[in-house]
Amino acid sequence: MFEKVLVANRGEIALRVARTCREMGIRVVAVHSTADEDSAVVAYAGEAVRIGPAAAKRSYLDIAAVVEAALRVGADAVHPGYGFLSEDADFAEVCRDHGLAFIGPPPEVIARLGDKTAARELMARAGMAMLPGSLHALRSAEEARRVADDIGYPVIIKAAAGGGGKGMRVVHDAAALIPAYHETRAGAQALFGDSRVYVERYLPDARHVEIQVLADGHGTAIHLGARDCSVQRRHQKLVEESPAPGLPADLVERMGRAAVRGALTAGYVGAGTFEFLLAPDGEFYFMEVNCRIQVEHPVTEMVTGVDLVREQVRIAAGEPLALREHDVRPRGVSVECRVNVEDPDRDFAPAPGLLAEFVPPGGPFVRVDTHGYPGYRVPAFYDSLLAKVVVWAPDREQALDRMDRALADFRVRGPGVHTTAGFLRDVLRDPAFRSGEHSTAIVDRLLAQRAA
Amino acid sequence: MFEKVLVANRGEIALRVARTCREMGIRVVAVHSTADEDSAVVAYAGEAVRIGPAAAKRSYLDIAAVVEAALRVGADAVHPGYGFLSEDADFAEVCRDHGLAFIGPPPEVIARLGDKTAARELMARAGMAMLPGSLHALRSAEEARRVADDIGYPVIIKAAAGGGGKGMRVVHDAAALIPAYHETRAGAQALFGDSRVYVERYLPDARHVEIQVLADGHGTAIHLGARDCSVQRRHQKLVEESPAPGLPADLVERMGRAAVRGALTAGYVGAGTFEFLLAPDGEFYFMEVNCRIQVEHPVTEMVTGVDLVREQVRIAAGEPLALREHDVRPRGVSVECRVNVEDPDRDFAPAPGLLAEFVPPGGPFVRVDTHGYPGYRVPAFYDSLLAKVVVWAPDREQALDRMDRALADFRVRGPGVHTTAGFLRDVLRDPAFRSGEHSTAIVDRLLAQRAA
Repeated sequence: MFEKVLVANRGEIALRVARTCREMGIRVVAVHSTADEDSAVVAYAGEAVRIGPAAAKRSYLDIAAVVEAALRVGADAVHPGYGFLSEDADFAEVCRDHGLAFIGPPPEVIARLGDKTAARELMARAGMAMLPGSLHALRSAEEARRVADDIGYPVIIKAAAGGGGKGMRVVHDAAALIPAYHETRAGAQALFGDSRVYVERYLPDARHVEIQVLADGHGTAIHLGARDCSVQRRHQKLVEESPAPGLPADLVERMGRAAVRGALTAGYVGAGTFEFLLAPDGEFYFMEVNCRIQVEHPVTEMVTGVDLVREQVRIAAGEPLALREHDVRPRGVSVECRVNVEDPDRDFAPAPGLLAEFVPPGGPFVRVDTHGYPGYRVPAFYDSLLAKVVVWAPDREQALDRMDRALADFRVRGPGVHTTAGFLRDVLRDPAFRSGEHSTAIVDRLLAQRAA
Repeated sequence: MFEKVLVANRGEIALRVARTCREMGIRVVAVHSTADEDSAVVAYAGEAVRIGPAAAKRSYLDIAAVVEAALRVGADAVHPGYGFLSEDADFAEVCRDHGLAFIGPPPEVIARLGDKTAARELMARAGMAMLPGSLHALRSAEEARRVADDIGYPVIIKAAAGGGGKGMRVVHDAAALIPAYHETRAGAQALFGDSRVYVERYLPDARHVEIQVLADGHGTAIHLGARDCSVQRRHQKLVEESPAPGLPADLVERMGRAAVRGALTAGYVGAGTFEFLLAPDGEFYFMEVNCRIQVEHPVTEMVTGVDLVREQVRIAAGEPLALREHDVRPRGVSVECRVNVEDPDRDFAPAPGLLAEFVPPGGPFVRVDTHGYPGYRVPAFYDSLLAKVVVWAPDREQALDRMDRALADFRVRGPGVHTTAGFLRDVLRDPAFRSGEHSTAIVDRLLAQRAA
């Protein structure tokens, strides 16, 4: 087992990874930008290395700086968390070249699945259904129009190098297609340095359902059930739950088997997520694979009892999976709400600042993953996730009651600081959400009601 | 269901009860002494009533003051927590007489089981094994000596009105018996206003194993498995866990069935605990019934997924048990450590004060039940329990690693403030504890090692 792990991330996930490492008897090294000197993980880790200025490009995204820090402190492995370098094949490769274990899939697998068009082709070969669309990157606006006309509107244009809900545009009619094509290409170039895009049919009333997978380096892969992440605003998830409400067991099992087959086809190693769109008619379509631990992983942990970060570390150290498929016995329902420092009344504009008061909720079956603490000044340079409030209960109704109580109990106050906790309570009270019959259209509808 | 519940307690349990009430949509009223004006539950509850001065006798133990508060605020039920009035049959009766639902067993049942000699007689009739001893209160020192000589030393003299580890003395030889008899009587009179005592054989290497029971008012009773509470200092529990390590499933099932039979025999209604001594030869002996929610109830919650306070409230509202025995499917291992404000280096003398720093541990599968917060001044008037750190894991080894990490992460600092967290980590590291082969003798042994 590793002796020292460098956590190449910040915020709640860095702290969460550090805690599991400690439980495994592994020493933890934090890295941080100048803006994160006061962060919780810096105080928590045994060692901390400043790797650059506030701008992520020159700190958390600076491969050379991170690898140099890892070598300097004598770490034998690197955990990338999510975001930043977590799905950067180059980073994984540089780690390997320097004798550092990368806690994630091999660079070749990241590269293959990170190209969304290549991933579509691979998964189609593995037998997964695809939404009608272009299986490869579009060569011209003209081709985009031809394909879109062919599959029918609405369509969605996506960056081949994108993922995680970034770099995509929904197009409702032919008139809007060409401008959207050029805008998405420009955005993709700016965001990912890769302007390639593809197009597929857009399902406005679909549900976002994903399967958590674990695969070891010895040819064994299992799935840990489904998460529903249909509550999204601009393709960013706000509420996630496991199991996916109302899904027949045999459908989940079919999705799970498809994901396991996909993982084995791709040579996947580590924890990964297969994202599907579930159409109202019960058909499910492959969207993408996330080659990282995900923000919403705690809901799977709560229902399965499996510490996914621990499994990531064990797999990266070469250990075989300790679990078999029949050992995964989900129990009850877990829901996660992402509490962001944003102002719902100002179009969710970032609202960070000094947390003069910060009292997260507690009590039975409530888990809060956060890097916040009283007196912490949330920096404005990074994403706005302040805390993940996660609950568990024997059934969904009790879980939602518990979540409502937990969100009501969360006390965050400071000059200029706003959070999405109140808006999330509106989502929980929505009849469609409460009955589990909501789709990805729910947030736009709630925001329209709020504005009316 | 109730609309408003008054929580007749303080500290962590008052907050824990209030949280569940809120999740059930029930309004919560706190009561408090003048010393507890700044307590967490007072801030948390929708309403708070000051019922008297710091001295518990004139506040938390003042039946008239508590009942008057409940009537004044229009509560329809009272939750007594543990300690204080939780097992006071008079209190339960006065509540009932005033039309307040008492969230606990009926007063007659509390009275019957509160008299430890009467409880022994009743449970012997229900078929439980008793340690050799007097089935009734001793009439004289002479009778005490005769019974002790008969059963053989060591023996333990216990207050008939005692329980919860209070009012008892171990006697190792005949010479010490008569003085101990008189001291225990005097102590019992002072503690409980009732000088009656009884004697039974003392098992120095026994384990303390208890069964959690739920019984509704409709003739149904179930058990929720076993807790091991063998780690005790002066009969006060320090570490508790569920399931009891190393116990064969059929032994737990026999204990569970005995407890359910006992509950039905006693006409029990609510959540209760049957405490047993488990001898090294595998025989188990009835000790007492606790007619309340217990300090260590979270470990049962963590492995079964059942919110015991919720079940208490439902049962008190007349609802039938929603669970059957086969619905109780314990998973994994849960351990609780009681972190007290005491100084292990000064014979565990109380060490309360201002919590200048207070950062409880967090992370996956860690639950902290506490009324502490940064800036809170722990009053010196009450018991020294500051926080219960509770963890869950798939197996005991991981649970102990997680607990060690959680205790190490717990930051409590203030002038004059000491906690038992470090001492508890010593217990966790002890090879006998780690292997699950410890008995109630463990703490004395560790303290002797520490002193040497």
